[in-house]
Amino acid sequence: MSYSYNDKTVISKVLEKHIRKLHSLVGNAVTEDRFIIFGTGSTQVISAAVHALSPDNASSPARVVASIPYYSLYREQTDYFESMHFKFEGDASPWINTTNTSSTNLIEFVTSPNNPDGQLNKAVLHGPYVKAIHDLAYYWPHFTPIPAPADEDLMTFTLSKLTGHAGTRFGWAVIKKKSVYERMTMHMELNTMGVSRDSQLRALKLLKVILEGKGREIFEFGYKTMKARWEILNQTLSLSNRFSLQKIPPQYCTFFQEFRESSPAYAWLKCEREEEKDCYAVLKAANIIGRRGYMFSAEDRYVRLSMIKSRDDFDALIERLKELVSEEESVVKGT
Amino acid sequence: MSYSYNDKTVISKVLEKHIRKLHSLVGNAVTEDRFIIFGTGSTQVISAAVHALSPDNASSPARVVASIPYYSLYREQTDYFESMHFKFEGDASPWINTTNTSSTNLIEFVTSPNNPDGQLNKAVLHGPYVKAIHDLAYYWPHFTPIPAPADEDLMTFTLSKLTGHAGTRFGWAVIKKKSVYERMTMHMELNTMGVSRDSQLRALKLLKVILEGKGREIFEFGYKTMKARWEILNQTLSLSNRFSLQKIPPQYCTFFQEFRESSPAYAWLKCEREEEKDCYAVLKAANIIGRRGYMFSAEDRYVRLSMIKSRDDFDALIERLKELVSEEESVVKGT
Repeated sequence: MSYSYNDKTVISKVLEKHIRKLHSLVGNAVTEDRFIIFGTGSTQVISAAVHALSPDNASSPARVVASIPYYSLYREQTDYFESMHFKFEGDASPWINTTNTSSTNLIEFVTSPNNPDGQLNKAVLHGPYVKAIHDLAYYWPHFTPIPAPADEDLMTFTLSKLTGHAGTRFGWAVIKKKSVYERMTMHMELNTMGVSRDSQLRALKLLKVILEGKGREIFEFGYKTMKARWEILNQTLSLSNRFSLQKIPPQYCTFFQEFRESSPAYAWLKCEREEEKDCYAVLKAANIIGRRGYMFSAEDRYVRLSMIKSRDDFDALIERLKELVSEEESVVKGT
Repeated sequence: MSYSYNDKTVISKVLEKHIRKLHSLVGNAVTEDRFIIFGTGSTQVISAAVHALSPDNASSPARVVASIPYYSLYREQTDYFESMHFKFEGDASPWINTTNTSSTNLIEFVTSPNNPDGQLNKAVLHGPYVKAIHDLAYYWPHFTPIPAPADEDLMTFTLSKLTGHAGTRFGWAVIKKKSVYERMTMHMELNTMGVSRDSQLRALKLLKVILEGKGREIFEFGYKTMKARWEILNQTLSLSNRFSLQKIPPQYCTFFQEFRESSPAYAWLKCEREEEKDCYAVLKAANIIGRRGYMFSAEDRYVRLSMIKSRDDFDALIERLKELVSEEESVVKGT
């Protein structure tokens, strides 16, 4: 089994065709006249994107930024691979007023829906020296209404958040510019000599199943499941003054052709009591393991809880939250 | 399918056990009390090794070197990922006398058997500031006698040159030091979040087949095939004054328990005529595609020819070489 397919590329043309078909069916991304590249998970795809968008011969490195709260890998990975060409700078907002007056190259990660809080983020930086990586890992109808097909210069996706096959390590990017596509292709070759064919075959099999019939079943099932979990969680915390959840406004979903509530992959839970600054510890004491706000460069008053673990895990989470809330009620009632 | 296995690692313990068993059976590497890490092909493993062996806080980057001729990826990949921590410097030999007098950190790639010329290279640099990456991709009984199990600090292997499944993108390293193992593990996580499970499963299936019975069949078949090809090639060029091949001394092979000729993966062909400095062009004119010496930082008087392509490709190579050699004879005979 060679490195490359018969057409000398390391990308299965059949799989690429199925990816385009899926985006077209779901209506979540424009892929006509766009390049598609594969990576070993979107982890590798976003690293390739940072390398590709960084200028080769600028006097100072491109600054890589994101709006808080943001997925910790952006920082960890960019710090790890830091070079003369790019450097992680953290929060995007201080750069908003500098984009036109300075020639600093900026690369903004725009995650939509956002990890951890599920918001449909937009880019906050605009200008001649700004480039964006739109991480659309969660932009599928089971997690969010799809208001319109995304049509950004560089969009990344992953099998992990589409079918749950994180272990297959298969991600992709949809790219407008040929030069960016070529640089990302070079990255994949020098880093891992392409993507495992076994992963590509697995991805193809899964996409074929998704596309069977009208191609709606997985999204209908996924939405129903995620929506039910989100409702149960909201209900569980509805009487609490101690804990709150993010609000995500309903929007029209072009895929389901109706207004829909969000059904996010994560709860972004806040400890509301002044003294409970370490929300992770509060939950930990109740045997609930989340990911602390600090990991997302936010306050530790926030914790990310996963809604996409197994049913057993989710049920246990709800049971333990119920206990916490009932303690709270007992205290309020003085019992 | 999660990112990790039930033990929270991203490495299949069953596969790891099979890899240790194979090394022990073949006798090509010591794996007792060693750490094993997986990568997306040895391409990713060697990149992780360069990152892991580079000092974190030195005043100048580690210099990455190799003996000429060397595999071009070392240069291409190290140049591409160049950072404050490491830098590719090319030929190892100028550094031989500086290893004790300078505090420059050096990382030497030692490829054995060497790509392109099949020699059982040894490290040329030694000293307190020198580390080595032993690339043992071809250190299997079908390509070389195995004089003894390799027992180096950091050794890399790949499925690609063991079974031919390059497209599966599966490589591994055998590592002595825990700190190096941990840094390489971090590299794999930040770069690709581990190795595809589908690749790991494929590797496991292949290793199980290799280990069936006495575990000798694939190596006996592989040696016979490669040895026959090498003999045919040598015979084809035996009367030529225009082309020559590398000589690799026979050695005792502990696996086959007898002295054996080498049976290399590549021919390192030299154009002997003074005026034929561009050997690649000479062969290209005869419809033979090799890889030019320049790619291995050597003279273009050399060309690497692959002995591991399909039988059809090999037969075509021999036919075309025969034509070249018979032209040569005609000229000599004046016919």
